[in-house]
Amino acid sequence: MSADTTGLIDELRRALGDDAVLTGGDIGDRTRSDASQTGRHLPKAVLRPATVDAVATALRVCNAHRQSVVPQGGLTGLAGGASPQAGDFALSLERLTGIEEIDEAAQTMTVKAGTPLEVAQKAAEAAGFLLAIDLGARGSCQIGGNLSTNAGGIRVIRHGVTRDNVLGLEVALADGTVLTMLNKMVKNNTGYDLRQLFIGAEGTLGIITRAVLRLKPLPEGRATALLALASYDDVVRLLKRAQRELGGLSAFEAMWRSYFSVTAKAENIPLFAEEPDFAVIIETEGADQAAPLEAFLEGALTDGLINDALIAQSEKERRAFWIVREGLVMDRLPSIVNLDVSLAIGDLGRFAEACDAALKARFAEAYVSFYGHIGDSNMHIAVSVAGASEADLHEIDEIVYRIVAQYHGSISAEHGIGTLKRDYLGYSRKPEELDVMRRIKTALDPNGILNPGKVLPV
Amino acid sequence: MSADTTGLIDELRRALGDDAVLTGGDIGDRTRSDASQTGRHLPKAVLRPATVDAVATALRVCNAHRQSVVPQGGLTGLAGGASPQAGDFALSLERLTGIEEIDEAAQTMTVKAGTPLEVAQKAAEAAGFLLAIDLGARGSCQIGGNLSTNAGGIRVIRHGVTRDNVLGLEVALADGTVLTMLNKMVKNNTGYDLRQLFIGAEGTLGIITRAVLRLKPLPEGRATALLALASYDDVVRLLKRAQRELGGLSAFEAMWRSYFSVTAKAENIPLFAEEPDFAVIIETEGADQAAPLEAFLEGALTDGLINDALIAQSEKERRAFWIVREGLVMDRLPSIVNLDVSLAIGDLGRFAEACDAALKARFAEAYVSFYGHIGDSNMHIAVSVAGASEADLHEIDEIVYRIVAQYHGSISAEHGIGTLKRDYLGYSRKPEELDVMRRIKTALDPNGILNPGKVLPV
Ligand SMILES: Cc1cc2nc3c(=O)[nH]c(=O)nc-3n(C[C@H](O)[C@H](O)[C@H](O)COP(=O)(O)OP(=O)(O)OC[C@H]3O[C@@H](n4cnc5c(N)ncnc54)[C@H](O)[C@@H]3O)c2cc1C
Ligand SMILES: Cc1cc2nc3c(=O)[nH]c(=O)nc-3n(C[C@H](O)[C@H](O)[C@H](O)COP(=O)(O)OP(=O)(O)OC[C@H]3O[C@@H](n4cnc5c(N)ncnc54)[C@H](O)[C@@H]3O)c2cc1C
Repeated sequence: MSADTTGLIDELRRALGDDAVLTGGDIGDRTRSDASQTGRHLPKAVLRPATVDAVATALRVCNAHRQSVVPQGGLTGLAGGASPQAGDFALSLERLTGIEEIDEAAQTMTVKAGTPLEVAQKAAEAAGFLLAIDLGARGSCQIGGNLSTNAGGIRVIRHGVTRDNVLGLEVALADGTVLTMLNKMVKNNTGYDLRQLFIGAEGTLGIITRAVLRLKPLPEGRATALLALASYDDVVRLLKRAQRELGGLSAFEAMWRSYFSVTAKAENIPLFAEEPDFAVIIETEGADQAAPLEAFLEGALTDGLINDALIAQSEKERRAFWIVREGLVMDRLPSIVNLDVSLAIGDLGRFAEACDAALKARFAEAYVSFYGHIGDSNMHIAVSVAGASEADLHEIDEIVYRIVAQYHGSISAEHGIGTLKRDYLGYSRKPEELDVMRRIKTALDPNGILNPGKVLPV
Repeated sequence: MSADTTGLIDELRRALGDDAVLTGGDIGDRTRSDASQTGRHLPKAVLRPATVDAVATALRVCNAHRQSVVPQGGLTGLAGGASPQAGDFALSLERLTGIEEIDEAAQTMTVKAGTPLEVAQKAAEAAGFLLAIDLGARGSCQIGGNLSTNAGGIRVIRHGVTRDNVLGLEVALADGTVLTMLNKMVKNNTGYDLRQLFIGAEGTLGIITRAVLRLKPLPEGRATALLALASYDDVVRLLKRAQRELGGLSAFEAMWRSYFSVTAKAENIPLFAEEPDFAVIIETEGADQAAPLEAFLEGALTDGLINDALIAQSEKERRAFWIVREGLVMDRLPSIVNLDVSLAIGDLGRFAEACDAALKARFAEAYVSFYGHIGDSNMHIAVSVAGASEADLHEIDEIVYRIVAQYHGSISAEHGIGTLKRDYLGYSRKPEELDVMRRIKTALDPNGILNPGKVLPV
């Protein structure tokens, strides 16, 4: 980090214009932290380049001064990745916005990185297409943030994660070099696929400036059901059958009784006469989905795979199912810890039992509940221990991640590493892998100016 | 390359066993070249490790001696990637074979890299699953070769390229370090996704030893049609409509008249009473596909989008359509050059016209024809100039690749770069990109022992 910030700031003002460089009282408080609310430092300056060239210039100048830079998108991240460390400049993408092109034949959208996801989704829809990247933070998160975190969300079982919805990428490297790889082709085997490096790198290898996203035909309808099951094995059997028989399967979400008994009660949404051990939401996309879904459920009922089934008869009923699943009430529980892990689908049942036992052995009064995108091998865990200290919260993480490691699972399915999971990364990645990551980091950002302190353990 | 090969060979024999190190007359002639038939050198030794540890050991020893190593899979590659350069040792994966596990809940197969693709496909099928990677060379090519070339093939429009069908990877680096990343999860955001680096790297960054592949439900049926169209614009319109209306669309292949008039005649398969300007094969996968396909075609006929349609009534008729598309007779044309490029779908029509004109301007008598996986933005070009010299063949490549560059297309859609396209790589990738590729190469293989002379221009 440079001591002579005044000279650097002057140089940036000259290069980028005054309105692209905020300092002192002009720096808004929201730049202190992403949605994890763990950021402790305001950035020393906020750079707001409005063009790709300006992003490149900003980086070139900062790199020459060894000035560290934290990229900031919509600040909805949950891992602390966009929160400044002491001394960082923030580089905000908020002015690099706009849809550049929708190519109907290629079924692609070329978009600037600062564009909010929802703006891009709506533009796609207006052109008769679906942009299949979708998550709860859609109103605030940006395409560049989605790419940098390889965001997941609720359509993954059908449309894949963000990585699967990208064809082209443009990136500004730490030294200001711009790699323009705005490819629209599905097949392209011309040397190393550099695009992949930057997806999910949380701003530590380069700043994403533009992207070519895949578009899909807009689905013409939707059908949703909530099901009652007796065991996790039945959940897995049902998933396999749904993947075979329901061509349009677009969501498969499971909730353990510990979870939905709380969320359904809190929302005052009574679902089944008798509370089952597992509840599953199935959703399918396409024209005329109701009849095939009904036929599927009848078969599953006959075979004893499910014990009860509710089909949403209205958008209101559908929303009610999803409200129970989203479980926002969880955040009202004391000292709530939300964990986001993934494991092989067949292991999730035993894993949940092991976590429950281990957490309660340490914290007898703990509330522990499980739910998630089971069709994507992704489980969320909500743990509440009233009056938990910082050390207790840390221990809860440790207990869970240790079991994740035993199952060769991932300590971060969707949210990334940032600072919050950085020191746990070794539970999912081996020392040899971390070593290769460091070699890549050094090859692309030799001065280490890009988002230092994030992702890689120090 | 080490001068003291005798000492090195002895060390390898001691470390790996005699049957894992072939020299002199024991080296089979087929190790000279991949299917491009452009290899000129036998390897100085062939290493045949049968375990992951043995692969790692072989690399560690070779790296210490600065001995260059060319990985060899099934040798069906078309870019010269697996052909030895003078002085190379070949490292053959032929003994590292076998399916380690099929996980029914995760829908994954864990497989050793030397396993032939067809063996893996059959094992998946026996377990009730589809392994969706598929290409003509399936009997000989290996999973490790498919991954290293990021192979495409005929199911891409539905199931993606090889990269899209991989969840986990194990790789031995140049220095013998093994990265075991046998992840079975769909979502995993724990730092850099190193798996992606090795997919499509043509053995220049590491040797793939094992992989976790995605499996899908086995499709229950199939329907196929051959269609006559009047223009490329209609082809694009039909594609868009098929993607909207045919949920199971699994192939969309177009042939320009210049192509199928030759192949259909040579195979003696008369297709339409009147030869159309464009012929398209559509295939859909799933249960009961015939009725929806018929309804779709009726609509397209009514709207004048297609002029004629033949639906395959038997597997024999279906094969006939595909024989015309595969066009093996092309290889009998004099001095045939096959090119494999990709461009934005909307541009392929004008691109074909531009290529045709440019090639015929230079070679008045040239036969020039176009066909390909249009739904994947992938076009093949077959050019025949009777009596063409080496320089002429080179010029044909140049003429086509120059136009590809104008359209920001890819000079290699499926087959990779190897040695054959190495010196053309600049038509698709910019100097900054090549520079980053070199930095990655140096970070992972500082001594440059892995497949030198391939992919990256010297
Ligand atoms: C209500 C809510 C629901 C959510 N639901 C989901 C969900 O279902 N699935 C999911 O995966 N996540 C979810 N998230 C997390 C979050 O929305 C995603 O991680 C999102 O992709 C972050 O985008 P952002 O623009 O806000 O990025 P930020 O938070 O600003 O940044 C995220 C990371 O990317 C870097 N970055 C940002 N922009 C760029 C750029 N242009 N170039 C390089 N690096 C950059 C930052 O430095 C940081 O490391 C949710 C969050 C909230 C608050
Ligand atoms: C009849 C025919 C049809 C074909 N059809 C298609 C098609 O439709 N689509 C398509 O994409 N290709 C096609 N090909 C090309 C070829 O089959 C593919 O490139 C295939 O993936 C190569 O596999 P292989 O095992 O034969 O690899 P090889 O030819 O042995 O090697 C290919 C490259 O990968 C490297 N390599 C091999 N194994 C490993 C490993 N374990 N680790 C690291 N590097 C390794 C080699 O060094 C080389 O650079 C076709 C070829 C033929 C002959």
